[in-house]
Amino acid sequence: MRIALDAMGGDHAPAAMVEGAVRAANEWSDVEFHLLGMEERIRPLLDGQAPANLRLHPVSEVIGTGEEPVRAIRRKKDSSIVVGCQLVKEKKVDAFISAGNTGALMAAGLLVTGRMSGIDRPALAPVFPTMDGRGMLVLDVGANPEARPEHLQQYALMGSIYAEKVLGMRQPRVGLLNIGTEEGKGTALTKKAFEMIQHLPVHFVGNVEARDALYGVCDVLVCDGFSGNILLKNTEGVAKAILERLKAEFTRTLWTKLAAAVLRPGLKSFASVMDYKEHGGAPLLGLSGPVIKAHGSSDARAVFHAVRQARLFIEREVISHIHEDLERVERG
Amino acid sequence: MRIALDAMGGDHAPAAMVEGAVRAANEWSDVEFHLLGMEERIRPLLDGQAPANLRLHPVSEVIGTGEEPVRAIRRKKDSSIVVGCQLVKEKKVDAFISAGNTGALMAAGLLVTGRMSGIDRPALAPVFPTMDGRGMLVLDVGANPEARPEHLQQYALMGSIYAEKVLGMRQPRVGLLNIGTEEGKGTALTKKAFEMIQHLPVHFVGNVEARDALYGVCDVLVCDGFSGNILLKNTEGVAKAILERLKAEFTRTLWTKLAAAVLRPGLKSFASVMDYKEHGGAPLLGLSGPVIKAHGSSDARAVFHAVRQARLFIEREVISHIHEDLERVERG
Repeated sequence: MRIALDAMGGDHAPAAMVEGAVRAANEWSDVEFHLLGMEERIRPLLDGQAPANLRLHPVSEVIGTGEEPVRAIRRKKDSSIVVGCQLVKEKKVDAFISAGNTGALMAAGLLVTGRMSGIDRPALAPVFPTMDGRGMLVLDVGANPEARPEHLQQYALMGSIYAEKVLGMRQPRVGLLNIGTEEGKGTALTKKAFEMIQHLPVHFVGNVEARDALYGVCDVLVCDGFSGNILLKNTEGVAKAILERLKAEFTRTLWTKLAAAVLRPGLKSFASVMDYKEHGGAPLLGLSGPVIKAHGSSDARAVFHAVRQARLFIEREVISHIHEDLERVERG
Repeated sequence: MRIALDAMGGDHAPAAMVEGAVRAANEWSDVEFHLLGMEERIRPLLDGQAPANLRLHPVSEVIGTGEEPVRAIRRKKDSSIVVGCQLVKEKKVDAFISAGNTGALMAAGLLVTGRMSGIDRPALAPVFPTMDGRGMLVLDVGANPEARPEHLQQYALMGSIYAEKVLGMRQPRVGLLNIGTEEGKGTALTKKAFEMIQHLPVHFVGNVEARDALYGVCDVLVCDGFSGNILLKNTEGVAKAILERLKAEFTRTLWTKLAAAVLRPGLKSFASVMDYKEHGGAPLLGLSGPVIKAHGSSDARAVFHAVRQARLFIEREVISHIHEDLERVERG
């Protein structure tokens, strides 16, 4: 098994990427790691600690977080993101992981790696934290701002298979993000998608409202990329705002600081529920090979978890299973 | 000035509605209050305390929270919601406030009160709490799940005028909910709406991401009803989930209970920032007269604030101002 890792992308790159890769290479000796990065920056970090199954794959360019995605991938053919997606396309590696520019990775996934047959649009599918600690796969959160009903149907199928094979959920409950729980609610898009998802070989639990999403009412939440992105960023924003405000209250006086110290262990256990790092990265589902977006703020631990996830993605043959189910659906 | 109040709608109806109405009638002696409710239930509550400027307007039916909106308003012509909207249409009152079935109120607003000329779709416009305590008007949150660019343009215009006249914001900053801040981001809808809003006589600050919305980066946030509803319900859901979790932590042991007691005053001040009741109800903008949706869980204080808001809506001639600006925009 061969996994390519982008050493240049993410807030803590390249150090955290290299550390995570070294840790993963030591853990899984059956995997051959291709670390994509600029030689002069990566070589010193590897010095003396590179396991035999990890090798540097030099690239000469880097796509920054602020760069316009499509232009960047067209101009920087030798960047870690473009090269990684190319290696997946050419089957020279079995998966690619990057914590870099999300838009550029989505664009390179679509334009360089390419879609798998039968899928019109790939979807970005992160795991949201839920109050029960189980997590929920949400797709799409922005690979395609606009969606047609058949795209949502494909998301439902891909999400269900991924949740079962990689996240280890038995008979994942698939929900459709909507503005009411009754059938017939929402837009023309959600109404038609509801009807289409009903005919899939998935455990469809119907419409799910944003209010209930965090409470673990489904394992896979299907939505168009615009709504999914709103949901993702609003969840981050509200949680951040509340926690900031609490922190300010906790440090206001000596007494509140003491009180906060007593509460700290409990709050930490809560923070770990909300911690995306435990949940690994977000796969781009619907491509011809596995491409995984690790969170921009990934540390070595998050990189390690993303590798674990990529292994399962490959081993459990997620893409073949999607193929098979698509064919079964087409045959009716 | 005449204001109609639905005594039958809301979780704490009719008691809280009657109490709020009595308080408002005592405060504003220049307002004539029409309390719409079932005589046998309202009369005992008013006994001996009804101010001279408050009179019971008997109705024989009530629309429940679970009823299908359009069917309910067609069948129950003598319900408080339908009668209230009818009174606004006939100019027999200057405004109508209800904490009842939101869908039924939106349907009756559209089908009974009717749209004002020049507006294609009314919008439901609640005030979201923001971290700076200022609040932000969001429209639409679900009166119309689907929107065309010209609808978003009309929302921007109506929202700006309402924020200025009723919420007292000078030169309100109008933002467009989108999945990126740069111009050209998002769907065909947001791209076209961006272009159209730029030509309005409003202070347009461009695209706003859901992550930043709570931080007070704009005063009026424009979006289609589906996205707005997702934003509203997700904000409620995330805040509720986090606060529940904190409460569980705070009551775990004797020590954490003591610690929580020290922190209580600060947490209370935080809770008041998040309290919708201070912000009054959500107007249905774009109708031929003022109709206000008070929160379903409104207590007497929330009803009182909704009346204050209705007074401003009428006094500041919001609808005439919208008319004037629409004409100015049409003349180019």
